[in-house]
Amino acid sequence: MTTRHDGRKPTDLREVRLTRGWLDHAEGSVLVEFGKTRVLVAASLTEGVPRWRKGSGEGWVTAEYAMLPRATHDRSDRESVRGKIGGRTHEISRLIGRSLRTVVDMKALGENTIVLDCDVLQADGGTRTAAITGAYVALADAIALGRERKIIRQSREPLVSSVAAISVGVVKGVPVLDLDYVEDSAADTDMNVVMTGDGTLIEVQGTAEREPFDRDMLNSMLDLAAGGCEQLAGLQAMVRIRPDGTIFQGVGSR
Amino acid sequence: MTTRHDGRKPTDLREVRLTRGWLDHAEGSVLVEFGKTRVLVAASLTEGVPRWRKGSGEGWVTAEYAMLPRATHDRSDRESVRGKIGGRTHEISRLIGRSLRTVVDMKALGENTIVLDCDVLQADGGTRTAAITGAYVALADAIALGRERKIIRQSREPLVSSVAAISVGVVKGVPVLDLDYVEDSAADTDMNVVMTGDGTLIEVQGTAEREPFDRDMLNSMLDLAAGGCEQLAGLQAMVRIRPDGTIFQGVGSR
Amino acid sequence: MTTRHDGRKPTDLREVRLTRGWLDHAEGSVLVEFGKTRVLVAASLTEGVPRWRKGSGEGWVTAEYAMLPRATHDRSDRESVRGKIGGRTHEISRLIGRSLRTVVDMKALGENTIVLDCDVLQADGGTRTAAITGAYVALADAIALGRERKIIRQSREPLVSSVAAISVGVVKGVPVLDLDYVEDSAADTDMNVVMTGDGTLIEVQGTAEREPFDRDMLNSMLDLAAGGCEQLAGLQAMVRIRPDGTIFQGVGSR
Amino acid sequence: MTTRHDGRKPTDLREVRLTRGWLDHAEGSVLVEFGKTRVLVAASLTEGVPRWRKGSGEGWVTAEYAMLPRATHDRSDRESVRGKIGGRTHEISRLIGRSLRTVVDMKALGENTIVLDCDVLQADGGTRTAAITGAYVALADAIALGRERKIIRQSREPLVSSVAAISVGVVKGVPVLDLDYVEDSAADTDMNVVMTGDGTLIEVQGTAEREPFDRDMLNSMLDLAAGGCEQLAGLQAMVRIRPDGTIFQGVGSR
Amino acid sequence: MTTRHDGRKPTDLREVRLTRGWLDHAEGSVLVEFGKTRVLVAASLTEGVPRWRKGSGEGWVTAEYAMLPRATHDRSDRESVRGKIGGRTHEISRLIGRSLRTVVDMKALGENTIVLDCDVLQADGGTRTAAITGAYVALADAIALGRERKIIRQSREPLVSSVAAISVGVVKGVPVLDLDYVEDSAADTDMNVVMTGDGTLIEVQGTAEREPFDRDMLNSMLDLAAGGCEQLAGLQAMVRIRPDGTIFQGVGSR
Amino acid sequence: MTTRHDGRKPTDLREVRLTRGWLDHAEGSVLVEFGKTRVLVAASLTEGVPRWRKGSGEGWVTAEYAMLPRATHDRSDRESVRGKIGGRTHEISRLIGRSLRTVVDMKALGENTIVLDCDVLQADGGTRTAAITGAYVALADAIALGRERKIIRQSREPLVSSVAAISVGVVKGVPVLDLDYVEDSAADTDMNVVMTGDGTLIEVQGTAEREPFDRDMLNSMLDLAAGGCEQLAGLQAMVRIRPDGTIFQGVGSR
Repeated sequence: MTTRHDGRKPTDLREVRLTRGWLDHAEGSVLVEFGKTRVLVAASLTEGVPRWRKGSGEGWVTAEYAMLPRATHDRSDRESVRGKIGGRTHEISRLIGRSLRTVVDMKALGENTIVLDCDVLQADGGTRTAAITGAYVALADAIALGRERKIIRQSREPLVSSVAAISVGVVKGVPVLDLDYVEDSAADTDMNVVMTGDGTLIEVQGTAEREPFDRDMLNSMLDLAAGGCEQLAGLQAMVRIRPDGTIFQGVGSR
Repeated sequence: MTTRHDGRKPTDLREVRLTRGWLDHAEGSVLVEFGKTRVLVAASLTEGVPRWRKGSGEGWVTAEYAMLPRATHDRSDRESVRGKIGGRTHEISRLIGRSLRTVVDMKALGENTIVLDCDVLQADGGTRTAAITGAYVALADAIALGRERKIIRQSREPLVSSVAAISVGVVKGVPVLDLDYVEDSAADTDMNVVMTGDGTLIEVQGTAEREPFDRDMLNSMLDLAAGGCEQLAGLQAMVRIRPDGTIFQGVGSR
Repeated sequence: MTTRHDGRKPTDLREVRLTRGWLDHAEGSVLVEFGKTRVLVAASLTEGVPRWRKGSGEGWVTAEYAMLPRATHDRSDRESVRGKIGGRTHEISRLIGRSLRTVVDMKALGENTIVLDCDVLQADGGTRTAAITGAYVALADAIALGRERKIIRQSREPLVSSVAAISVGVVKGVPVLDLDYVEDSAADTDMNVVMTGDGTLIEVQGTAEREPFDRDMLNSMLDLAAGGCEQLAGLQAMVRIRPDGTIFQGVGSR
Repeated sequence: MTTRHDGRKPTDLREVRLTRGWLDHAEGSVLVEFGKTRVLVAASLTEGVPRWRKGSGEGWVTAEYAMLPRATHDRSDRESVRGKIGGRTHEISRLIGRSLRTVVDMKALGENTIVLDCDVLQADGGTRTAAITGAYVALADAIALGRERKIIRQSREPLVSSVAAISVGVVKGVPVLDLDYVEDSAADTDMNVVMTGDGTLIEVQGTAEREPFDRDMLNSMLDLAAGGCEQLAGLQAMVRIRPDGTIFQGVGSR
Repeated sequence: MTTRHDGRKPTDLREVRLTRGWLDHAEGSVLVEFGKTRVLVAASLTEGVPRWRKGSGEGWVTAEYAMLPRATHDRSDRESVRGKIGGRTHEISRLIGRSLRTVVDMKALGENTIVLDCDVLQADGGTRTAAITGAYVALADAIALGRERKIIRQSREPLVSSVAAISVGVVKGVPVLDLDYVEDSAADTDMNVVMTGDGTLIEVQGTAEREPFDRDMLNSMLDLAAGGCEQLAGLQAMVRIRPDGTIFQGVGSR
Repeated sequence: MTTRHDGRKPTDLREVRLTRGWLDHAEGSVLVEFGKTRVLVAASLTEGVPRWRKGSGEGWVTAEYAMLPRATHDRSDRESVRGKIGGRTHEISRLIGRSLRTVVDMKALGENTIVLDCDVLQADGGTRTAAITGAYVALADAIALGRERKIIRQSREPLVSSVAAISVGVVKGVPVLDLDYVEDSAADTDMNVVMTGDGTLIEVQGTAEREPFDRDMLNSMLDLAAGGCEQLAGLQAMVRIRPDGTIFQGVGSR
């Protein structure tokens, strides 16, 4: 089996670390790390819903994704300074929000809103998949706290399933899991897959960066992604049991 | 076989119409219609490339997608009036540009830029897939004109393949092709597929709107999309042969 | 009598075409063509009025004018992308709204709003006058539909008169009617005149582009404009009688 | 003859005052007052022209009009705070620039730029006509200084003529000159006329605010305006002779 | 004692002039001049308070500072044209608002709002201190008028004290009062001090522009500022007694 | 001696922690913590300077301050989403940049630019002082690296001194050091002091939040601040010696 530039096998995740409660004020918060990629997720729970949803009896979950200017190798200008949000930022924010909403029973959430702020402190590939994976844990914590504090008053659990996400891609003809920045830049095809803890698909976004790909390659990538999401779902379950603190979990080849 | 609300079979496209040369000034232009969805695509060819690409010897292709305020059933505010571009607009513009770039040999294009403006005059579902399908034809015309006028000077043809796109979705448990607005609003899953004329994949974007979906359903949707894209590729080829004017092609069940 | 670059006499309009019902969703819509200038007008009728007019018992009519990026010979940047609306766009939107409001009895309209979206699909001079001329027809259709659907409930007809507009200018010392882009670029003076169907003036905007002009020249231009507006008013009346569809009317020298 | 609410006859201007050199830094500056309307005009002369005009050997003149937030009876929000410039502001800025450019020989100006900043310190009707009338004087001073300092190096005088502007309107059926805010609010028709010192027309902008108007009324208004502009041209000539300071000139009924 | 470039002693203010009632519409207005620095302050009193303060029984005072484009030696772009407010503008607006709020008893003001618009017509150093000094007088006039008109209904006087401000700095090692532009550009340290009429401190903002400064130097500057503010407080008191009009007061070395 | 709500004495800092090298890409980076206040500072060094400084032979140092939306107790909207930067953000960014520039010899830096991004991950009072204190360490690391990599080529050390900052305030009549959010909200006076490692002043910003303050109180606050800055300067020196990693330093009352 081929080896990758960092020694991983094609089916290996990078080291993944989920640190719950990284912030003191937020109802739920997680520092999620996929290798050097580090995303801080804060879940903010507030009573009430946006105007267009008032009186529906249903809640709302939304997400905002952003990068610190020096998260990347070279510094980028701040979107607040430029005065507008770029297309990539918008696209990822929408993806995260949509993915998390799929596993929330909005009736059970009641007329409450949860905003998931996903701020990339350091970027090394896979920031959107790390964000989704971490956002699930922050969301779950915010919901648990909301139920405990009787802000969420329905007896039914609003969380229907768990959600995790991972990237796959074709590098030098070989499908590999969880690409870092170096691999991402060299990939012919890039795919992000979002799955529930039960192994069903929430989102599949595959893009031919250089070369169009065929159905067989698509299937290989989907198989890889399924394996990665399963491991992440296990980690999410584990970290949720531990009463507090950090779980360190190397899932790499070491 | 189930019938849809407009009488189509699950595997039927709507009536598709491609009118070349709808505009007098643009180097390439197409009015593309998928049923009531009507998108005007203008391809603008200019010498030179954006600053970051200067001196590379390579060209650039980009796209901008927008909707007229009354394209939709209810009027929406103009993005120019709101002073910013929405996430959806950004996302679709990026998708169109990326899809078309995949089939262009940038070295053969030389240091020239083609902008594809895709303006939705009327929306009834599938605006992004209509835009991509039409944009290919406008792009091809602009490239042909550019070669004729010696703006594009390489002897190698810059167009490597053709591109078409179609939507598929799961409505009431049944996978159907080319959803209109009514079906789109009711779909559990929504997928957009971009393919080359050779049947390879350029982009797969599947989203669980309500229910996560499994691999079997994904495969059914991909099969449907492949059939649709093949028909569109045929139409594109046909319209490109006709020296001028309109091709009317009902591909529906009528 | 002098001949113009396209063979017209100084008193000739270009071919004018009004296609009603070009859109399926809008309460009124017209594709208006003055030669190669093509403007799509959509009239959107909604119940209610802007906040500052609430409780007045009076309606509101407003307009928004815009150009597609490749309406012009060279592509222009989108105003939505630049994040602000240019002065020319603002100015023309205001002119169109003001002109149409002059012929509407706001009490008879009741607390309803009509927005007239005038999008220039192709520009070849005279876009604002084409927009006003078309907007009247779209407005009339929206009002008729609103009365039929009992959204507009007053028994009194809200439309007090019809409105048409035409440009005149002085080219090489000769006053001419309905300038196209080539003439417009060469004109010493440029004037836009908006008139009611009864031949009274709603708006006169004359500008010395190169040379100041005297009262005699102003009078010649006003005479020309009066003749042009009268012809347009006739066409508007004709197209409104025909139950549906397209009226093709060459009013030129052919 | 009818009397107006402030005692003026229909043909009377308000008191007009032009104070040259109101600012210390600007190459030309004027505080112009039409009754209570007070506009500060600063002319800034700089070497060089905008990029699109470089190498043409011709200069450029442009204008920016704005209002202080409490110029008006009730405070308005600042356009800088709202983050965008309103349509009315744009429209007036363009009118001022266009009017002044008509009397400048751009070849004689050479590749230099003059910006005319017209800031309304207090508004009581006629701000745009006061601005144009004052801007001519500030422009003339800036040009004179530029020639003296050899920034403008052509021997030919760049100023071809003088420019003044005045408003006319129909109030209660009677055409009147130089409307103040109270009259302006009540006028059926509102017209702004810009003329050269020789009595030719630069710009005519007549708008039916309530009732369409006929050619006779238009002619009456143009006659009134011609008389007003002639008086203003006299004042401009007078103030330019006086070596420095203030000319107070009541042109009213006193 | 050292002499400054304009002949002043280190402890001298420039000539200060306060002209009350410079505007006709505003509830309070002052043209304040510190030498060539000229700031027009308008105080706008309106009933009601911003949303976040409603029902508190307390009023609100806020300020907006801005510069005309040609207030400075070279013309600057308008913030309305650039579409955003610069940091310096924001900072000074906040300083003025904060300073004035310190002397207002918000309960006694009742649920009314006063906006202080400070527009710099000409800048020659010390614009923020001139603005604060003038704003106090405009504020006092607006409050007096508001009480007279029973908009402010509490019997208690809302003004607790007066406010004045002055700049001090270290130029060539010597601490000097009220720097003009030339001195400001050359200063090692720049400090703005806001004081009440009783001589207590409201705001101290000292900045080492070139060289850090020690406690002794800080004390010297504070002594100078106290003297300057005392003189300004005297002037403010004097101008408030005079029933109307202009007080000219040279406080310089003449 | 009085005790504060968290058990500190008036002269106590909170626990301060400086973690160097928190980021992998940035030329210098520090996670600085003052109690629960946590600011991530990244120093980005690039060759070249802004246009207005080109050819001067001098470098440039600037700073940008921002808060994550959930840094605060309640979530705030993102400035990128609102499309503009608030006054407070601007003000603090300018303060940080100015403070750091005071200790940099721009000639010795050469034509290189260092941007200091200070992102508040969690806010509990004193974010600007924590940012300045941390920014010095990140700046020093970036300069050291720049000299090592020969990007900074002068032999002279560009850092002239160290910089630290602390807040002081008057709470219930007692001057206290390093206020947290609870104290800050209750303070009568709030002051931020920036000092060099030698104990001279760079910036003094004192604001009467409720009550004006006198010179004695000002002096007490300055004494407290001097003590705080001295301790911070010691910590900065210590952390710079340690070859890598984290220094934990409780400077509180424990």
